[in-house]
Amino acid sequence: MAFIQTDTFTIRGYECDASGRMSVPALMNMMQESANRNALDYGIGIADLAKRGVGWMLMRFQLRMHQYPRYGETIRVVTYPTEVEKYFIYRDFRILAEDDTLLAEAGSTWLVFSIEKRSMVPMPDFIRSLNPPAGLTHLPKLPHKPDFQSTPFTPTKTKESVVGWLSIDQNQHVNNVAYVEWLLETVDNETLETKKLTEIDLVYRTESHWQDSVQIQSAVETPQTFLHRIIHTESGKDVLLARSRWVTD
Amino acid sequence: MAFIQTDTFTIRGYECDASGRMSVPALMNMMQESANRNALDYGIGIADLAKRGVGWMLMRFQLRMHQYPRYGETIRVVTYPTEVEKYFIYRDFRILAEDDTLLAEAGSTWLVFSIEKRSMVPMPDFIRSLNPPAGLTHLPKLPHKPDFQSTPFTPTKTKESVVGWLSIDQNQHVNNVAYVEWLLETVDNETLETKKLTEIDLVYRTESHWQDSVQIQSAVETPQTFLHRIIHTESGKDVLLARSRWVTD
Repeated sequence: MAFIQTDTFTIRGYECDASGRMSVPALMNMMQESANRNALDYGIGIADLAKRGVGWMLMRFQLRMHQYPRYGETIRVVTYPTEVEKYFIYRDFRILAEDDTLLAEAGSTWLVFSIEKRSMVPMPDFIRSLNPPAGLTHLPKLPHKPDFQSTPFTPTKTKESVVGWLSIDQNQHVNNVAYVEWLLETVDNETLETKKLTEIDLVYRTESHWQDSVQIQSAVETPQTFLHRIIHTESGKDVLLARSRWVTD
Repeated sequence: MAFIQTDTFTIRGYECDASGRMSVPALMNMMQESANRNALDYGIGIADLAKRGVGWMLMRFQLRMHQYPRYGETIRVVTYPTEVEKYFIYRDFRILAEDDTLLAEAGSTWLVFSIEKRSMVPMPDFIRSLNPPAGLTHLPKLPHKPDFQSTPFTPTKTKESVVGWLSIDQNQHVNNVAYVEWLLETVDNETLETKKLTEIDLVYRTESHWQDSVQIQSAVETPQTFLHRIIHTESGKDVLLARSRWVTD
């Protein structure tokens, strides 16, 4: 059976930032919540996978913001899987206003890893055989390796940080949205005050854990875009690579 | 007219911490949201005050956790003003499970400040004359100056931090709950992993703003309690003083 998840969320004061707009991390948290609920309906929730010794890893996420909701507005988050391949499963998200205006949309790519080996494995059959909803228009599949993943850059801002207790989730690793909070904090003040984020494109590479030290780097790429990189200090591995796009408010 | 605010919240995955329990900052955010909604009904919301050149400041907050809710549970936040005095207004909160179990309760004390002078003013008449709901049992009024406010301590842990964009709210200052997030991050690892917060008592002293540098200090007071202090680095002023109490899980 195919399942389309629809959740409504009324935006609370603390889900808005200093500009009065809904904060992108708050929205991404809601999208993650809806994805989890949809996965439960499909029998592919975190616990369903853990029983079989495997876990989900988000590999790619690209969010486009068309219009920001504000305090008190009710939004609908709609999400469903779009396609399953040997190694990857794709999931789309649409964020709608009460009058059906498309506020935002996102594509994502997920893989499955072996908990024991900590490495990627082919999609198990119980996931491979699921039925995505039919007859819907899909967002284009995200490239597994976007250009910015291999663009070297000299950071104009670097922040060293230690992973705190409140950044880890019930799986004991840093929640996907915490990284986005960190990288937003390395954007320069003028951009934060006078522009708004219109697109964020993320490549998740390695997990990180409580008390790990990480370096959060960013660089101006063009007048509209920043490049971001989060590095696990001890291993030197890339945790996350990203590009963000901003427009004048 | 008297208004009792009741909001129901179903706990989302990201509102729980690594222990699987609802996180205290997430709960406090919901309480703040309900208080704001209740204030709107009374005509004493942030915008109502701003029109008259004044603003709210939370001075005291004491939360007692009796039982932690978990993912997917629905809680009710009930809040209302209990008494108005010349300089202070008191507000109680109760958190209830679906079967009416009392999960948590909190008392709070608020004052009004002049936006121009940045100093406390007597409660304006439109606030002074409001009618708290009658016939309800109130929590005891919190002492304006609890003992721990003047207990000097030598910090066993100090963290320097710069106020980030995501910690400020639409009033352009640090949101009350962000301070609690910061002080929880200075509690030692063993306590975070093996105990749970059962009480937190807060004295808010000065506001802080985006990009301010703050020092977050904590010290072990007894085997069950920590003392906390947040200092505004440049002015040396106390921003927050607190005591937290922990019990073995």
